[in-house]
Amino acid sequence: MGSVGNWVGRRCLVTGGMGFIGSNLALTLEQAGAEVVVVDALIPEHGGDRRNLSNAHDIRIVDSLISNESVVGPLIKKSDWIFNVAGQVSHHESMTDPLRDLELNAREHLAFLEMVRRENADAVIVQTSTRQVYGRPLRTPVAEDHPTTPRDINGVSKLAGEFFHRIYGSVHGLRTASLRLTNVYGPRQCLNKTTLGFLPVFISRALRGETIRVFGDGNQRRDCLHVDDVTAVLMESAEAIATDRIEKGSFFNVGTSESITVGNIAEVIVKTTGGASRVAYEPWPKELEMIDIGDFATDFSQLSEALGWFPRVAFSEGIAATIEFYREHSWYLS
Amino acid sequence: MGSVGNWVGRRCLVTGGMGFIGSNLALTLEQAGAEVVVVDALIPEHGGDRRNLSNAHDIRIVDSLISNESVVGPLIKKSDWIFNVAGQVSHHESMTDPLRDLELNAREHLAFLEMVRRENADAVIVQTSTRQVYGRPLRTPVAEDHPTTPRDINGVSKLAGEFFHRIYGSVHGLRTASLRLTNVYGPRQCLNKTTLGFLPVFISRALRGETIRVFGDGNQRRDCLHVDDVTAVLMESAEAIATDRIEKGSFFNVGTSESITVGNIAEVIVKTTGGASRVAYEPWPKELEMIDIGDFATDFSQLSEALGWFPRVAFSEGIAATIEFYREHSWYLS
Repeated sequence: MGSVGNWVGRRCLVTGGMGFIGSNLALTLEQAGAEVVVVDALIPEHGGDRRNLSNAHDIRIVDSLISNESVVGPLIKKSDWIFNVAGQVSHHESMTDPLRDLELNAREHLAFLEMVRRENADAVIVQTSTRQVYGRPLRTPVAEDHPTTPRDINGVSKLAGEFFHRIYGSVHGLRTASLRLTNVYGPRQCLNKTTLGFLPVFISRALRGETIRVFGDGNQRRDCLHVDDVTAVLMESAEAIATDRIEKGSFFNVGTSESITVGNIAEVIVKTTGGASRVAYEPWPKELEMIDIGDFATDFSQLSEALGWFPRVAFSEGIAATIEFYREHSWYLS
Repeated sequence: MGSVGNWVGRRCLVTGGMGFIGSNLALTLEQAGAEVVVVDALIPEHGGDRRNLSNAHDIRIVDSLISNESVVGPLIKKSDWIFNVAGQVSHHESMTDPLRDLELNAREHLAFLEMVRRENADAVIVQTSTRQVYGRPLRTPVAEDHPTTPRDINGVSKLAGEFFHRIYGSVHGLRTASLRLTNVYGPRQCLNKTTLGFLPVFISRALRGETIRVFGDGNQRRDCLHVDDVTAVLMESAEAIATDRIEKGSFFNVGTSESITVGNIAEVIVKTTGGASRVAYEPWPKELEMIDIGDFATDFSQLSEALGWFPRVAFSEGIAATIEFYREHSWYLS
């Protein structure tokens, strides 16, 4: 078990804080006693929603791009703990509007880091990167020294954003760490868009009693991480930077050793929702097949060694809790 | 020896065509009988200069950023052979003005590729990338499968620009190839700026009779390529794409097996200019040491196998011809 630290009174800034991972983190930080500000541009095509924070007691919400100096500069100045989670996650949209993807996933973050450097160079910064930076694996499980060969524009932009955090750590001495997250699922994920990853699409279709479409034979392996494990590792990483247990500019894989095929994932989700839905296997659409990456498995041993972090939520349990959450909060399906 | 093809009447577009590599290529293409248009924004801090093309007979010169749709779109439509050489090359400036570096080396190229896709999806596109994308080598010589871990913002932006060309080749089917160039020297390199690489700085200082400052012990190894070898490989790569001898979205290292230390490079340059200059070894400035990459050696065997290309100009010969060129064209020093 990692060291989460004592978060009471800590001044935290969460970018993308109305999105899936950001809102779960913001709520967890508040529960741990932190003073939380979230900044989120609520870009319509993305997954952010004000209602994700409806349970918050005293979280300050700021509607802005992270590059906005007059708005975000003062927030950075007052934040000792920064979780930089903002980003555009759709691979498909990155291919149809590539310039926007580069803007949101690379340029925005570079501008943000320049502000941190100027306004609060002592802040701890944990950034969420993605396993997508590896592209199609040459071997599995994939460790941090595996070549990074993104298959789509989103992967390139996210990789650039990650490198910026690493270079601002190694060259400019900012206290950064980047986490390359595997597929994440759980409460507060946007369920009414088809472009934000296959997990929310599967969950949404199962809950609606619709057929889940699996492309190809469904035998591609994935490891799926519950968002509670992600919020834990974000906080533990912050603590590790603050106590000099990891180097400035570090980056780590975050995943689970529970390997499961995409077809099985669909079957588990159908079964957990009670079986009104079903799974259909269909040929790959050309534009998606071109950017698929085959099997993936995460080697997260470096992170476990550095932080003592291990995932705690088994997929079947996590999915059951997630389905229950969405049944209790039915607006996610509307 | 590679196949250069018959360039008579071929319609060529050279971006960055008033810069060092671009102008040498434009002149060589014209001599080979091609119809050449160059587009160059002549950004003051970069190396471009109208006078680099003063020997041209009928090269059309267009002063524009490569992303300008109304100006560059029509040029792309009429060009079957595109050499995308434009870019900002200063590592140091990428650290002081990172947003501009990202704009020029990544965003401009993404916008350019979108235009090619729309206006002339059959064009052949050869792009110049850089060995800087590898960062500090884990092992030498460095082959294409070596991890890409840039040490500075310039390396990240250039890597993103290269990935865009590769993805537009592999996913969108554009006929692209990217070349990761090692350090290049030769005629028409800008000698009156200190930020465009160590080779022009050394040559400039030697020609002025000034002391060449070598940082550290000068024992870092490099391989230096004469620009004539680069123009040859650019043309041979274009021919190889056009004849389907290499895949769309390919990328190759370009270097030489003549390995030489930075200290020796300085000594050869001093000796060739007649010895009025001298070499002084100085401690590393902190901001440059942080982004230095140690020894580098290029494994270009993939390129040699695919294209039959080998470098032809030995360093001592190339430097002698280069020094002679600058003595005959003294405005480069003013």
